[in-house]
Amino acid sequence: MKKIYQLTLIASFLLIACGEKDTNTSQKAEMSEKVIIDLSHSYSEETVYWVTAKEFDLDTVFMGKTDKGFFYAANNFSTAEHGGTHIDAPIHFAEKGQSVDEIPLEKLMGAAIKIDVSANALPNPDYLITVDDLKAWEKEHSKIPDGSIVLLQTGFAKYYPNKVKYMGTDERGDVAIEKLHFPGLSPEAAEWLVQQRNINAIGIDTPSIDYGQSTYFKSHVILLEKNIPAFENLTNLDQLPNSGFEIIALPMKIKGGSGAPLRIVAILTK
Amino acid sequence: MKKIYQLTLIASFLLIACGEKDTNTSQKAEMSEKVIIDLSHSYSEETVYWVTAKEFDLDTVFMGKTDKGFFYAANNFSTAEHGGTHIDAPIHFAEKGQSVDEIPLEKLMGAAIKIDVSANALPNPDYLITVDDLKAWEKEHSKIPDGSIVLLQTGFAKYYPNKVKYMGTDERGDVAIEKLHFPGLSPEAAEWLVQQRNINAIGIDTPSIDYGQSTYFKSHVILLEKNIPAFENLTNLDQLPNSGFEIIALPMKIKGGSGAPLRIVAILTK
Repeated sequence: MKKIYQLTLIASFLLIACGEKDTNTSQKAEMSEKVIIDLSHSYSEETVYWVTAKEFDLDTVFMGKTDKGFFYAANNFSTAEHGGTHIDAPIHFAEKGQSVDEIPLEKLMGAAIKIDVSANALPNPDYLITVDDLKAWEKEHSKIPDGSIVLLQTGFAKYYPNKVKYMGTDERGDVAIEKLHFPGLSPEAAEWLVQQRNINAIGIDTPSIDYGQSTYFKSHVILLEKNIPAFENLTNLDQLPNSGFEIIALPMKIKGGSGAPLRIVAILTK
Repeated sequence: MKKIYQLTLIASFLLIACGEKDTNTSQKAEMSEKVIIDLSHSYSEETVYWVTAKEFDLDTVFMGKTDKGFFYAANNFSTAEHGGTHIDAPIHFAEKGQSVDEIPLEKLMGAAIKIDVSANALPNPDYLITVDDLKAWEKEHSKIPDGSIVLLQTGFAKYYPNKVKYMGTDERGDVAIEKLHFPGLSPEAAEWLVQQRNINAIGIDTPSIDYGQSTYFKSHVILLEKNIPAFENLTNLDQLPNSGFEIIALPMKIKGGSGAPLRIVAILTK
């Protein structure tokens, strides 16, 4: 059950500043200000799902005063694994890939970068994020560090949960699939990330890492075959810097799951 | 959406060691070894639920090769909010309490302690954790620090998912309620924590913060009325030290939810 992970945590930054590890200071700990940004949409009747997927349904079991006099509330719910802010486990598109409970936690927690392509994507719902977009980020910052969690900001989160604006249609079922329009990662850029860089996970503020008009979901296949999980339907990416923050992404632990609801937060140092 | 939180993070420990904050070192970050311990059971047909609650059900939507030639897997699932490793939101037993999406994230992430009562609890499935148990921890360590997440280790996780051993019965329905036997937190100890200490959250390795024979769920009411959420059905607490570690507990963000599946991990510094 123990997992060793190697992260460029804030702790590490300060470790470098100190020049050595001091484990005796924990008793002297003081309060430190951090900012947590929730990158997760909530689950409700408004939650956006794939046009063919089962939507979220909350069923009240009890809410009110019991005959013993105390207040009590409890619900059941049902949902597709892939809807709202969720994770695609590798097995979603890779037969031998990890299921959601098998994804090592160290892939889901650690240093992250954000690549803002909203200037290109917002005017074009069929925009495909290119290798050049990734290289432009590198030119401005650095080579994408090994082990990074890479978040792609298209800006489309601002339309959520308006399905017409967010994904091109509010129709449901197979007939709606061809009406899907939202930006995604091009297969060429996915291939470049897999071949030329060494990332831990990827995330996007649209319903899918492949764009709406995709039919073969090649970016999914390319990433998931390499056991790189994908976070979809993220929000609040506009509140993140382009680098120098951390992601903690903890999915519901569904045994054998192809994905799961995901609570994902970013940690910024003030 | 931004939340300021004040945590005794490992970063803070090193901050003290440095004597000052150095925010310019992030570019020079090196790798640091941490240990992540997953305190979450997985969801499956074996997941333990309250005897009257809807159990976890995973329904395969598709698994195999599509007509386009690529592999694809997806499932739906249904569950009670309260089953397996989950969180009780304050509104579960407090009419004006927070729902699960309203719990501030800073209450769910931060410095934690573990109080091991397994020597008393394992021989007695009706054991109620006492104020003296809490005071005994304080005598050995320190006053429970303000803002702590407090984990209670009864040792019962080792029986999971054997329902007879873990909770006293594998029967289901109202008739099984009186057959429930597992340790919990006494209402007196809950009251002491609420009145005398200032904790952020509480957790236990049994199905409920109230013991199996409880009928009025007073410890729930006492804690949740103060907006102190409870984590239930935890595991791997035996792998934690008694203090000096951190908890990250991220529940599924169910709008208005009285609770939710919870992914909870502990972070230890090696």
